[in-house]
Amino acid sequence: MRQAGRYLPEYRAIRGTIGFLDLCKNPDLAAEVTVQPVTRLGVDAAIIFSDILIPVEAMGIELELGDRGPHFPNPVRTAADIDKLAVPDPVEGTGFVAEAIRRTRKALNDSVPVIGFSGAPFTLAAYMVEGGGSKSYILIKRFLFEQPKLAHVLFQKLTDTLIPYLKMQVEAGASIVQIFDSWGGELSPYDYERFCIPHLRRMVKELQATGVPVIVFGVNLSNHLSLLKSTGADVIGVDWKMPLDEARRVLGDDVAVQGNLDPLHLFLPREELDAQVRDILRRAGPTGHIFNLGHGILPPTDPEAAKFLVEAVHKHGAELRRAGA
Amino acid sequence: MRQAGRYLPEYRAIRGTIGFLDLCKNPDLAAEVTVQPVTRLGVDAAIIFSDILIPVEAMGIELELGDRGPHFPNPVRTAADIDKLAVPDPVEGTGFVAEAIRRTRKALNDSVPVIGFSGAPFTLAAYMVEGGGSKSYILIKRFLFEQPKLAHVLFQKLTDTLIPYLKMQVEAGASIVQIFDSWGGELSPYDYERFCIPHLRRMVKELQATGVPVIVFGVNLSNHLSLLKSTGADVIGVDWKMPLDEARRVLGDDVAVQGNLDPLHLFLPREELDAQVRDILRRAGPTGHIFNLGHGILPPTDPEAAKFLVEAVHKHGAELRRAGA
Repeated sequence: MRQAGRYLPEYRAIRGTIGFLDLCKNPDLAAEVTVQPVTRLGVDAAIIFSDILIPVEAMGIELELGDRGPHFPNPVRTAADIDKLAVPDPVEGTGFVAEAIRRTRKALNDSVPVIGFSGAPFTLAAYMVEGGGSKSYILIKRFLFEQPKLAHVLFQKLTDTLIPYLKMQVEAGASIVQIFDSWGGELSPYDYERFCIPHLRRMVKELQATGVPVIVFGVNLSNHLSLLKSTGADVIGVDWKMPLDEARRVLGDDVAVQGNLDPLHLFLPREELDAQVRDILRRAGPTGHIFNLGHGILPPTDPEAAKFLVEAVHKHGAELRRAGA
Repeated sequence: MRQAGRYLPEYRAIRGTIGFLDLCKNPDLAAEVTVQPVTRLGVDAAIIFSDILIPVEAMGIELELGDRGPHFPNPVRTAADIDKLAVPDPVEGTGFVAEAIRRTRKALNDSVPVIGFSGAPFTLAAYMVEGGGSKSYILIKRFLFEQPKLAHVLFQKLTDTLIPYLKMQVEAGASIVQIFDSWGGELSPYDYERFCIPHLRRMVKELQATGVPVIVFGVNLSNHLSLLKSTGADVIGVDWKMPLDEARRVLGDDVAVQGNLDPLHLFLPREELDAQVRDILRRAGPTGHIFNLGHGILPPTDPEAAKFLVEAVHKHGAELRRAGA
């Protein structure tokens, strides 16, 4: 999950001087906020500060990122709209992301690895077709069900954009990449399989060819875990709604899991938070686990709670490893 | 799911003359819109037209139901706020619901049964604490995690309100009642078990004592199915995100299932919709299944698609029963 953000006063100080989208496009400042949680919290990896909609804007669609979430004044809804979209050269269109990764690596001096990321084709298409966030996802789902061939054309174009975009991040120094399918959980397994999996599979395969592992994550996707595994991803992210031992039962031991603390559990009394951390580590088992929140951290979260969390993960993780659990 | 609604021109005609909340409180018109889908679609049961927030308003909290969803100008957030809430006499506070059920039964002349319903304590509390709908559920979840005892006081008061409210519906002629825990799926199984299950269990038990079966339903609750079964409910509703044969594997054959067509599948070409219906019936198996949408029907839905759906359920249901599947 994005580690930088409004819960950190040092982030708010920078955001007071620059808009969100401009911050994403400013490699110096993007690197600075990327490093902030490493410095303050002691996390074991840094995830580059950016937004999943950055490469979409580079496809030639106007994007506004306001306080009320992303907004596309001209949504994508017809064959002509899709035809107009470019498959941008990643460096020309989004080179600032690569530059931010390079500056982050330099600032971190290789103390911890950098995670690159992108959205998944379906999630990005959902924003583009809906024109922003949605509650019922009626427009994107009607698009899928009424014009399935056209939907695949859009997914294809997104996939063709995202693969070089992520490869650019790897070349710039990302040691691992994560694909966020934030809204994929709105689809039934039947639809997820036919509309999302083929494109994710291609992304995973081409990214792995560069030598980096790939994480795939989505919210409300715990009914789709075996489908996610079929993408060939190295790590499957799980939200907080399914205990990791149950996820393991579906996924097996030959894939790593990521997750899965409820971000709101950072508001639990410290003792209970500590117990939750230990429980998650225990359920994840000894093979391949990236401890993470099950979704993004929320602005009113106390940074001290986040710091306590990181320390608890380190403490219990070491204990469980010693116990051979 | 609510069967009446803006997708029906005959409903829109009535709503053009009266506000949503006033319609809920007008037994004649509420009965009329309840019967509309039975007449037009040929469904096998009628669900009373009402809103889950009706009994909450009767607890003495101001409620506005506008086009942008429900809004409580004075949210419930402190012990004093909870203290001020009444446990209303159901007939005094919400007798119009009973009256609407009686008039519906009369209008239907017992051709199909009437389903009564209420919200679950957690879902209602979420609206009351948030002050309306929410995206992150940060206020209700902080309330749970920071003030768990107070949360249970609120849940208790809601349960004490909802049980007589549903009993009143049964006395008025509801043959079965449904409890909607629309937002319960936001909680981890751990939190769902400690905050929701005890109150649901009490509701189910006391309602079953009146002789009617109880349905429990929520969205994104398919990771919580064994917990839902532990309430003792007769029927467990499943959203469209988990195939019913997988739900059966968790639930066993000694409880009925309800669901689970994606409401957006009503926009599929007829042939594909037909195949989905057959697939759902087949996966549900021969023991206890109420065919339903996995969530509410959306306003732009074509009533002809809904009618086609009902006919497909009847046709394939009869075929599968004949085949002994």
